[in-house]
Formats: sequence, C-alpha cells, structure tokens
Amino acid sequence: MKKKIITLLTDFSTKDGYVGAVKGVIKRISPQAEIVDVTHDIDSYDVLGAAFALNNFYKYFPKGTIHLAVVDPGVGSLRQPILIKTKDFFFVGPDNGIFSFIYQREDIVDIIIISNKKYFLAKPSSTFHARDIFAPVAAYLSLGIKIDEFGSPAKECVKFIIPQPESKQKGLKGEIIHIDRFGNLITNIPADLLENKKKTEIIVGKRRIKGINRLYFEIKEQELGALIGSSNFLELAVNQGSAQKLLKAKVGNPVRINFE
Amino acid sequence: MKKKIITLLTDFSTKDGYVGAVKGVIKRISPQAEIVDVTHDIDSYDVLGAAFALNNFYKYFPKGTIHLAVVDPGVGSLRQPILIKTKDFFFVGPDNGIFSFIYQREDIVDIIIISNKKYFLAKPSSTFHARDIFAPVAAYLSLGIKIDEFGSPAKECVKFIIPQPESKQKGLKGEIIHIDRFGNLITNIPADLLENKKKTEIIVGKRRIKGINRLYFEIKEQELGALIGSSNFLELAVNQGSAQKLLKAKVGNPVRINFE
Amino acid sequence: MKKKIITLLTDFSTKDGYVGAVKGVIKRISPQAEIVDVTHDIDSYDVLGAAFALNNFYKYFPKGTIHLAVVDPGVGSLRQPILIKTKDFFFVGPDNGIFSFIYQREDIVDIIIISNKKYFLAKPSSTFHARDIFAPVAAYLSLGIKIDEFGSPAKECVKFIIPQPESKQKGLKGEIIHIDRFGNLITNIPADLLENKKKTEIIVGKRRIKGINRLYFEIKEQELGALIGSSNFLELAVNQGSAQKLLKAKVGNPVRINFE
Repeated sequence: MKKKIITLLTDFSTKDGYVGAVKGVIKRISPQAEIVDVTHDIDSYDVLGAAFALNNFYKYFPKGTIHLAVVDPGVGSLRQPILIKTKDFFFVGPDNGIFSFIYQREDIVDIIIISNKKYFLAKPSSTFHARDIFAPVAAYLSLGIKIDEFGSPAKECVKFIIPQPESKQKGLKGEIIHIDRFGNLITNIPADLLENKKKTEIIVGKRRIKGINRLYFEIKEQELGALIGSSNFLELAVNQGSAQKLLKAKVGNPVRINFE
Repeated sequence: MKKKIITLLTDFSTKDGYVGAVKGVIKRISPQAEIVDVTHDIDSYDVLGAAFALNNFYKYFPKGTIHLAVVDPGVGSLRQPILIKTKDFFFVGPDNGIFSFIYQREDIVDIIIISNKKYFLAKPSSTFHARDIFAPVAAYLSLGIKIDEFGSPAKECVKFIIPQPESKQKGLKGEIIHIDRFGNLITNIPADLLENKKKTEIIVGKRRIKGINRLYFEIKEQELGALIGSSNFLELAVNQGSAQKLLKAKVGNPVRINFE
Repeated sequence: MKKKIITLLTDFSTKDGYVGAVKGVIKRISPQAEIVDVTHDIDSYDVLGAAFALNNFYKYFPKGTIHLAVVDPGVGSLRQPILIKTKDFFFVGPDNGIFSFIYQREDIVDIIIISNKKYFLAKPSSTFHARDIFAPVAAYLSLGIKIDEFGSPAKECVKFIIPQPESKQKGLKGEIIHIDRFGNLITNIPADLLENKKKTEIIVGKRRIKGINRLYFEIKEQELGALIGSSNFLELAVNQGSAQKLLKAKVGNPVRINFE
C-alpha cells in the first residue's frame, strides 16, 4: 500500500504538547501515514497568514497528499469542519477562509461538510477540534475511506476577499499581503502584471524604488529594493536586512507602481 | 517488524543542532524507528511545564510508543536516568519529576534506573545525556531489548507534589498550573469537581467571572471567561486574546470558585 | 532498497510555508526519502552559526545520510551551489562557508559544483534555490544518481577562517565562537589543549573563573563557571541561568586562560 502523507499547519506552537496529541491520534488510527510538519508557528488566530503559507507549499507535494490546516479562532462555533478534494490533493480544516487561495486557484472536485461522528474521537472536546475531529478525519482519509463517508456535500466554502491590485493611470495600486520571516514585504501584485514594463517606479511609504531587480543580491547591502519573489508576487526587500523594520510596514499598507 | 515510534520532548530548541545529534544517534542504532517531534520549545529548565505538556499528548499515541522527555537542569548530578514502563508506553528521561503526571495516572509496570553502559554512546559526555544516554537507550528499546537489560529496578521515581485544589466553604481554591501558547490559564481544577454545580462564580486577581462556558466562542471577543479546556481542567481564557496578558497572571496564582 | 535520510538545516523559520515547499519537492521526487528536521531557526543569514550547528550533529547520523544545509544570504549571486561527498556523508548547499567545519575535519572525497539543470525544478526562481535547486538535487541523490551527474568537480570550497586559539606566555588566548540556546558561551578552545593543566584561571570580561568543572551541576546555581561542553570545547556557563545575559557576551569576545 502506498504511504499517504499528511502535512500539518497550525498556530499551536509546540510547547504545550497539543501538536503531539494531534500526531498521536493520526498515528494510532493510521500507522502507515507519514506526518510532515510544515509549521506550528503561524501567528495566533492569523487565518490569512495561514492561507498564505499554505499557498506557498501545498502544490509541491505528491499527488494524494492530505493537507491538514488548523488556525481556528472560532473553534466550536457555527463555522463548519470541512474537507476539500481537488484534482491532486485533500484539504482538511475549519471552514473559515483558510482555504481561500486553494478555492481561487484549484479546480475543486468536492467540498464535504464533516459531520459523521463515526470518524471523530469519542466524546470530542468543544475546544480542540484539531485533535478530536480534524486529525482522525485526516487519518481515516489516509486509510482510503471515501470522502462522502465523512459528511454531506456543500457547494461552497468560506473565502476571504483576497485584495486585488487596481489599475491606475499609468500604473497599479496594490498592497502588502504578507511579511515573511526575513522581513520581506510580499505584495498582491503578481509578476505577470509587471512583464514588459519599462521604467517601473515603486512607491511605498515615503520611499521610491526605481526598477525591479532579479536577485536579492543585486540590491545593495542594507538597502531597499524590489524583486519578484518565490511566490511570483512583487516583493520589497532589504538585502541582508529587514524591509519591515526599515519601513515599519504592516500588512495592508499600500504599494503604488508607476510605469512610464 | 512493526515500526516503533519514539517521540521527542526537550527544552533544547533546535538552533544549536543538539536535537539533530539526538536524532542521528537514534537513527544510527535503530534505522526503523520513527521519530516524532513533539516539542523542543519547553522553557529552559521548566520541568513542570514539560510534565504538563507530556501529559497532554502521551496517551494518544499507539501502544508501544517510547516517549523520550529531557528537560534536565541537573544533568550529570545525582539525579538518575530512568526508564518507566506502563501498560501501554515506555518513558525515558531524567528522574527529576518530569514523569510526575504519568506516575500519578498510569499503572506503572516497571521502573528501571538506567546504568548499563553497553547501551550508552562510547565515552558519554557529562553534560549531554540526551545524546549519549537517553537517545541510545530509547533506540535500543525500540529494537526490542528487554527493559531489565538497561539497569536495576526501582520502586519509585521522583515526583512533584502537583498542587491539588482544596475544598472551601461552598467552593474550591485552586491555582494556575500552566499558561499555554494562546495565553489561556490552565488551573488544577478538574472538570468533575464542577459537574452539576449551579451559579458558579470564579475569582481570579480582581476579576469575577460568572458561569462556565462551553466554547471559546461563547466568550465575547477580547473578554475574559472560563471553560473546560481540552485537558479537562478549568481554564480561563480571552476569546481571540490572551488571558495571561489581561491579568498579568503567573503559574501559581490562586483561583477561587464559589458555588451557590 | 535502503531508505535514505535527508536532514534539513535552514534559517527560514517555518511560518511562511517555505520549508513545506522544500519538503514537498523532496517527497515528490523521492517518496522513500526520510526527511529529518534538524533546525529552521538559525538566525537569519548567520552562516557561521549554521556551520557550528551542522558540526554538532552531522556525524551522528547513519552512513549515507544527505545533509541539506541552506543559510544563503547570497542566493542567486556568484556563490555556487555545491555538493560535497565525504567518506560517510553527502552535503548539499550554497558554497559560502557553511561547510567550513566539514572541510576542516573530514576527508573530502569529492566536491561538485552543481550545474546540471536536469536535476533542478523547471524554471527555478532566482531567490529560492533551496526549493528549486538544493531540494531536488538532494532528492535525486537519495535515489542513487551518481554525484558527477550533477555538475563538474571542484578542488576547493569556500571556508571561513575559523578563529584558532593562540598560545600565550603560560596560557592561551581564544574567543567565543557560539552562544547556545541556554546562554552558554562556547569558545574555540578544544578540550585537548586543557588536558593535564593545573590551576587553570579563565578571564572573560571582568570575571575570573578558577578551575574547570566537569558538570553544570558542580557550578553553584546562578553562578558562572567553566566546563568542557558536549562539542568538546571549553564552555562558560551559569548553572540554571544564562552566561550570555550575565556577561552581556557576544560572539568574538576574547577569552584568556592562564596556567600556573
């Protein structure tokens, strides 16, 4: 039997042992499943940050991979537990927008509202669905249980309005949608909107940046520059420094681009 | 042969490569062992925090799992390296109280003081027993070596006096025993002491909380409330915020409960 | 077929999902490879810290292990991607000094400048070689591809001048080369230079330490002492405290030793 991969993305950190409980539940139900930690260090309750991180990695995994993603400020509320099947992957988690990028980019084959208690831990707690609902569902899924066994189909899932860049006179207006560990500012402006443009000027806060570099290294050390990042969005970066610190930037700050 | 799981819980963090050494030693001795990271982010020397985290996850793992837990401020001192066998699990680590909850809750089948140098790395350092003693012992254990091979039986292990709640006139007095990553305050008051009680009032610092919620979500956003947490203890929480920050609470702070 | 281990050491942290992408790429190419996280918490761009951490763990792994180590401030610049084969291990990463200790301590069998695009992801980004070059190369290596398939041999790799202790009149002068998670100060003075010495006095900042202890525990609680650490270098430590905080010490600070 082919070993199934279950990836984990949470905001639990690891220090309380909660992630250990999730892993134990999975291994007990599905000893052959291969658990791959992606992260447990999403900022607490940062569903958009989780969606962004998920978007950075899910598609690189082998077909059939189950992505378990739990950042769940509304645990126990009316938000539903869901399971999404795309052409290549499964996604399991709370229906709170965490799968927004998946919904936007992938052909969704099925969405299931998870409700079949047969696949939950006995007496699930109301505050720890990752352990009591999502982990066992992912584990049973890895054993080959059919998705319609887990609940009823739905037509849609919750999704954020992911901010889109606007066309402006001779330019674009976008915004910062993520700040990464190196302090690089990732915008919502995709690379293809910048192709074949000449004399690009980028305005962020009080700074103006001329042109787009190809490499971090082409930016002078400790200076601010712009480039196309590995997620294929325009990124503002300080070579060997932090653009976030330099600009005191926050998610949501505007980024203006002028072409000539 | 069935693959054995070895879980890891330490306060080493990962940045110095020490955890890598522990993993390497295990894989070299027992290539089939499956290493599961639980945490390396216990606060430095926080043996009680480690005991609490261990208690949150150990029982969810498959039978036969070996739990390696090393938070070891007294490394190299008179504290003994021990191995505990319960009905379902093995525990390996320093005998400093880290296994207090296990001792309290599980039927202990055997306790062994680890002493057989045959199962240590050659020339063990005096400061890194996780790599030189605990990791090889866990690895040999996963190969099926019998536990009495590792040393001599003992009758007891070191355990903390885990603070117990006291009955008070029409109420209880407990305390905070753990603060989790979300800033939730976990008390030593188990759920069963609160069953069938009406009109519960909880006093913590200068705050009074009426009633116990079932869900984080039932607490108003950014407000303080009480609920039964996933470890089955009374917990004080701020919905989408931090009770620890709100109350400037510390482990050991008293929590008073009045019934009517 | 024997399962190959690929260890991971990076400064990416895990929160952005970049490490997830690296793992996905490996598992897609080499489903049998066993990924072992060592650390993703090296300080951003701290190549020397990465080299030190690598030195702490690489040799404990089974023969044939592939160590993937990426702290890469010059990504996309003229620095070359390299592959090093020693008697027992493979090392894959940027040629920027990260393998300095390996180069100094191991018999190098081969150094290969990685250049064969056949083993890269299609259209590699210029900013994320870990995902697009290093991960696929490590994965193909784990499948048994011969090392000269990946590029052309080189004679040398970049290495730091690792500071060496100097002999002084009746003593030694060394320096702090690493500060670990516990705040222990690790010097460049190896244990063998201290053997058979009597009446050792160590001077660091304004402090003088008499003698070398064998155990953290022999140092009085919260006091400063010296011992031989688990990496076999002289270490300055505070028992259950932080020598770094006490001395406000930094990497590079001098440590003087007098013998009598």
